[in-house]
Amino acid sequence: VQINYIIPGAISAGPLGAGELRRRERLLQSWAFPGTQVSVTDIDNGVMSIESLYEEALVVPSMIEHAEALEKQGVDAVIVGCFGDPGLAAAREILSIPVIGPGESCMLLAAQLGHRIGVLLPVAELEASIREQAFRAGVLQKLAAVRNINESVLGQMSDPEKSYGNLLKAARVALEEDNVDVLIFGCMTTSFMNFAPRMRAELGVPVLNAGLVALKMAESLVSADLSHSKRAFPVPRKRRA
Amino acid sequence: VQINYIIPGAISAGPLGAGELRRRERLLQSWAFPGTQVSVTDIDNGVMSIESLYEEALVVPSMIEHAEALEKQGVDAVIVGCFGDPGLAAAREILSIPVIGPGESCMLLAAQLGHRIGVLLPVAELEASIREQAFRAGVLQKLAAVRNINESVLGQMSDPEKSYGNLLKAARVALEEDNVDVLIFGCMTTSFMNFAPRMRAELGVPVLNAGLVALKMAESLVSADLSHSKRAFPVPRKRRA
Amino acid sequence: VQINYIIPGAISAGPLGAGELRRRERLLQSWAFPGTQVSVTDIDNGVMSIESLYEEALVVPSMIEHAEALEKQGVDAVIVGCFGDPGLAAAREILSIPVIGPGESCMLLAAQLGHRIGVLLPVAELEASIREQAFRAGVLQKLAAVRNINESVLGQMSDPEKSYGNLLKAARVALEEDNVDVLIFGCMTTSFMNFAPRMRAELGVPVLNAGLVALKMAESLVSADLSHSKRAFPVPRKRRA
Amino acid sequence: VQINYIIPGAISAGPLGAGELRRRERLLQSWAFPGTQVSVTDIDNGVMSIESLYEEALVVPSMIEHAEALEKQGVDAVIVGCFGDPGLAAAREILSIPVIGPGESCMLLAAQLGHRIGVLLPVAELEASIREQAFRAGVLQKLAAVRNINESVLGQMSDPEKSYGNLLKAARVALEEDNVDVLIFGCMTTSFMNFAPRMRAELGVPVLNAGLVALKMAESLVSADLSHSKRAFPVPRKRRA
Amino acid sequence: VQINYIIPGAISAGPLGAGELRRRERLLQSWAFPGTQVSVTDIDNGVMSIESLYEEALVVPSMIEHAEALEKQGVDAVIVGCFGDPGLAAAREILSIPVIGPGESCMLLAAQLGHRIGVLLPVAELEASIREQAFRAGVLQKLAAVRNINESVLGQMSDPEKSYGNLLKAARVALEEDNVDVLIFGCMTTSFMNFAPRMRAELGVPVLNAGLVALKMAESLVSADLSHSKRAFPVPRKRRA
Amino acid sequence: VQINYIIPGAISAGPLGAGELRRRERLLQSWAFPGTQVSVTDIDNGVMSIESLYEEALVVPSMIEHAEALEKQGVDAVIVGCFGDPGLAAAREILSIPVIGPGESCMLLAAQLGHRIGVLLPVAELEASIREQAFRAGVLQKLAAVRNINESVLGQMSDPEKSYGNLLKAARVALEEDNVDVLIFGCMTTSFMNFAPRMRAELGVPVLNAGLVALKMAESLVSADLSHSKRAFPVPRKRRA
Repeated sequence: VQINYIIPGAISAGPLGAGELRRRERLLQSWAFPGTQVSVTDIDNGVMSIESLYEEALVVPSMIEHAEALEKQGVDAVIVGCFGDPGLAAAREILSIPVIGPGESCMLLAAQLGHRIGVLLPVAELEASIREQAFRAGVLQKLAAVRNINESVLGQMSDPEKSYGNLLKAARVALEEDNVDVLIFGCMTTSFMNFAPRMRAELGVPVLNAGLVALKMAESLVSADLSHSKRAFPVPRKRRA
Repeated sequence: VQINYIIPGAISAGPLGAGELRRRERLLQSWAFPGTQVSVTDIDNGVMSIESLYEEALVVPSMIEHAEALEKQGVDAVIVGCFGDPGLAAAREILSIPVIGPGESCMLLAAQLGHRIGVLLPVAELEASIREQAFRAGVLQKLAAVRNINESVLGQMSDPEKSYGNLLKAARVALEEDNVDVLIFGCMTTSFMNFAPRMRAELGVPVLNAGLVALKMAESLVSADLSHSKRAFPVPRKRRA
Repeated sequence: VQINYIIPGAISAGPLGAGELRRRERLLQSWAFPGTQVSVTDIDNGVMSIESLYEEALVVPSMIEHAEALEKQGVDAVIVGCFGDPGLAAAREILSIPVIGPGESCMLLAAQLGHRIGVLLPVAELEASIREQAFRAGVLQKLAAVRNINESVLGQMSDPEKSYGNLLKAARVALEEDNVDVLIFGCMTTSFMNFAPRMRAELGVPVLNAGLVALKMAESLVSADLSHSKRAFPVPRKRRA
Repeated sequence: VQINYIIPGAISAGPLGAGELRRRERLLQSWAFPGTQVSVTDIDNGVMSIESLYEEALVVPSMIEHAEALEKQGVDAVIVGCFGDPGLAAAREILSIPVIGPGESCMLLAAQLGHRIGVLLPVAELEASIREQAFRAGVLQKLAAVRNINESVLGQMSDPEKSYGNLLKAARVALEEDNVDVLIFGCMTTSFMNFAPRMRAELGVPVLNAGLVALKMAESLVSADLSHSKRAFPVPRKRRA
Repeated sequence: VQINYIIPGAISAGPLGAGELRRRERLLQSWAFPGTQVSVTDIDNGVMSIESLYEEALVVPSMIEHAEALEKQGVDAVIVGCFGDPGLAAAREILSIPVIGPGESCMLLAAQLGHRIGVLLPVAELEASIREQAFRAGVLQKLAAVRNINESVLGQMSDPEKSYGNLLKAARVALEEDNVDVLIFGCMTTSFMNFAPRMRAELGVPVLNAGLVALKMAESLVSADLSHSKRAFPVPRKRRA
Repeated sequence: VQINYIIPGAISAGPLGAGELRRRERLLQSWAFPGTQVSVTDIDNGVMSIESLYEEALVVPSMIEHAEALEKQGVDAVIVGCFGDPGLAAAREILSIPVIGPGESCMLLAAQLGHRIGVLLPVAELEASIREQAFRAGVLQKLAAVRNINESVLGQMSDPEKSYGNLLKAARVALEEDNVDVLIFGCMTTSFMNFAPRMRAELGVPVLNAGLVALKMAESLVSADLSHSKRAFPVPRKRRA
């Protein structure tokens, strides 16, 4: 089983370089079921990180083009590598293999594990779109807190211990003030810093790593021979012609 | 007051040509308040009409770039010329002037004029996204029917009388079977065929022309010196830097 | 185009006198599109200001009678001059011209301009009915704060600077504690003190003047030749007989 | 215990005369717990029956005035004698004793007795306001059908057997097509024709007589020494002064 | 009329003994309408008090068996003596007489008496299930606070004055911080301590005693000859065979 | 990894015998990821199949006791083998390992794969509880159809081809009349007849086998080292003491 995690921006051309792709690939591979082969690829579109709906919109056309090529190469499922799930529904119109949105997957999983969900973000700018995702997924009533650490997406990686400290502080506020009982890292870069086990141990509540959750969703759908409904996400009329 | 209606696809390069832009411009101008100057422009991006979320996604980057240029030229408000409101929130992050979504505007207006909204579409493929728009706008409970005439967006214009007949038939079913009391043309091409007065006369319920409704919303916001909240749609962090 | 703003109480017989009607008329006229003629009238029913649902109920019969007379005189649209929209649906059953509710109009407009709406009230007593209006309009999920300055409706006018100070303080709390991103003055008397531009300048978020928003809605409907659905608001059976 | 059922219209001045008041009083008394004394009174306001929101609005001021007088006379609870609950919240601001709305009471009771509620109306005009009541009460999701027999409120009484036949037919459609499992008579005149036991026997589902349900609610609140919250329905500020 | 209040646990075998059953019976009898005969019985199932969903689940089979026997003996209605309403829907499948859930009854009654409901619990563990009950009943939007005094169910009775003080303190926080306008004791043991009149007098808002409210609901249904719909709660297929 | 599927009834003591347990075990094992070991066990409690909420309630105490023993034996996750998820929340209070509800899992997965969910049931009696599950999971708005084939749970197995024909017919109605785009088998016995691939091939929409979906959820949680929040599902107070 081949699963491709698509970073929808030119991360390998930036300061982190291709090494970051390999690092994420190794992490995903280490989380995978036996028999799963994970690849991480990025896209040459000039967006280094996604901190707005505008940047989400910019990456979608090249992301879908890339995903379509991956399907033709025989990949079994693709993961949209951004918590905001940019282009998820549009990609599902074009592809037949499962297209996984980490945000959608995390919210629906968290709704099973607890009653009051808290999402931890790097930047405040995306708070509204987190609420929108929860609204669409049907779990807005269970979203009890969205908190941020006011740090840019890539800035989180420059001092991981400091970022962890800030995330832990934000999580504690969410538990104490908002009575949260399950946490989600609302950013892929945060997730790949792999803090979830440590935070779970300190706080005693489930902490969802969005990369890991998306991978499990992808593997599950492939294993169950399921994919999105083409009646719900129809191939565009002009393509069918 | 300068208002620009953006057709987010290369309609002038297609069979309809630039004449269609001028025709829509004349119609919009004829609907405008005194003192409003309406321009219609399109975008060179290869999408001739939008019948899927995929096509919506494709047009967003060039549409926002164009809208940003218009703001710099001193335009007072822009209208996203597609009922699906592609890129609406993303464009609001970049622009400070009002960015109008015809779908959002029509749904919220219809919710004031009646209790049970019916949306008439050319194609079935967009039914789910109409429901999604209503859900986001808060009026899903008032959306009583989404019906289509199974005709491509541009195909509607080849035989207007036939299209009108099909729309009227679909509207009658919505009134009789779904007890609809207010109708929306869920497509800009349908709207610019200007059937609303005729259908209203025949059916006795309000019929919303999405182009006209969007224009009134644009003019109202400019006149009231209002625009979207930049706290709700913040300028992307990297742009501010 | 003739638009009539109805003050549903005997304000001209009170301490403010007919001068207040003329003052509001001048303000509305100054906000109008070219070609709009605005009149402000009041009603002889003993209610000097509306600070309860009881007072709302008291004014409805005479307000509708007055509105009906205005329609017969050729007025193109009427505005119910109370943020609580008393008798809105009932009046729509009797009239065919647009009947505008400032509360309904502001809530649906605010839902387009931001994600988290804050309403500023003079008195606490109407908080529940604000929530009820938001619930009915479909935007309750976006209503993030209802705050009051504990001042009677007419009392606000005795010391405008003090009232502005209190409103600004309440607005700041709504922004900081409730994370509001768009504000509404939930009272016509507050709105006609015309503080919106000043508060917007100080706080950096849109501030909706309910009188101005209602006027734009009235002008838009008349200009678009739209009115409420008589299928949704049917003429009472005995009147039709 | 004294309970007063207020008919909010001049029914005794109409063709039915005061005899109809006594007939309803006898029925209510026959349904009462031992120790309850029921009176039925009407109001001199020119409305003979309520078939619109307009007529609802017309009766409210005199209804509240009458209710207030009854409270002063020592009545323990009042019932607003119209299924639409006109003026319910406004009356609660003025009175301290329980004010019962038959529509509100029936909907909340029906939500306990079944999952899919059907409301039977005389006229179609009030369908939207039934949905509105259900929405406010929180049970809109359980409202599965609103059906009418296209007969005026008072017209129902001219040929009771015909009316019963039409109601039974409408109920059967609601059961078969809408899968309803509990029925409400959405009109007081229908309720006082006392068809509920007969229809229940024929259809095998609970059928709620709105007069009986309102009486039980009134008796229960008085017996439990409960009334509406004056914090939720505050005395108008000018009255307190 | 015979009404049976079922304590779904072996309270008479515990430290409180059968005396507690008699005490509750006397209280219920004192609250009853003339003509009502109330009995209180318990069940031999090893659960002394219910402080979790697990304990709720444990008591259901014996509770239903007992309720069924009571119906055969001619009892007119039964009350499930736990605020969490364990087994309510299941019991309604087996019984034809009314089965009353105190939690369901209180929430729907409170929704009529106020706008913002506060529930006072002994233990924090049941907070989530209170929200779930409110969600199911349709009144979640009106549930403004769930607060607890961190005391075991039976522990409340060891020092009633201390418990009252803690409840009063929790209620005051709910009023001041959450703007609650109607209160519910979310536990039968709390309710039978009969603090409601005293707290109402001190706080000026309605305080619902769940035992009293459940009794009124039972008496009302019996008096109105109503019970749950067997179409909504059908007899299990194997029983009908 | 050890996963136990618990049939919450004495199926091995019935006509199907222990062979049915082994058959289901083989199917589950064939669907599992490499490294997963699946066991199927049943419980000695007299319920042969679950066709009512009453039967759901009867099985919960012994099901939880059995699940607890399995956790002590080192099992990594348990699946509640009934689509109605009986006792799911209660079991999560007692266990720390993941407890999977097939109904909950299917509804949340279907909400990702399509927009309009259809559930196919053997018996009509459980329709209301399916809606309740969807309501709780947050996806009620996406539940477009619940249809049944009027066949007892175990009766389905006596003539599989006939059952398949009836299911296919019900599914076709759901697609054509209710515009469903994703299907769920709302019963474990139906699911283990393994019709999903065949029906998907005939209808062209995803068809969810509840046993397979529950297994994938169990494997995913174990692999991701996640389980339900003990803050959301706390250990009962008396157990902690």
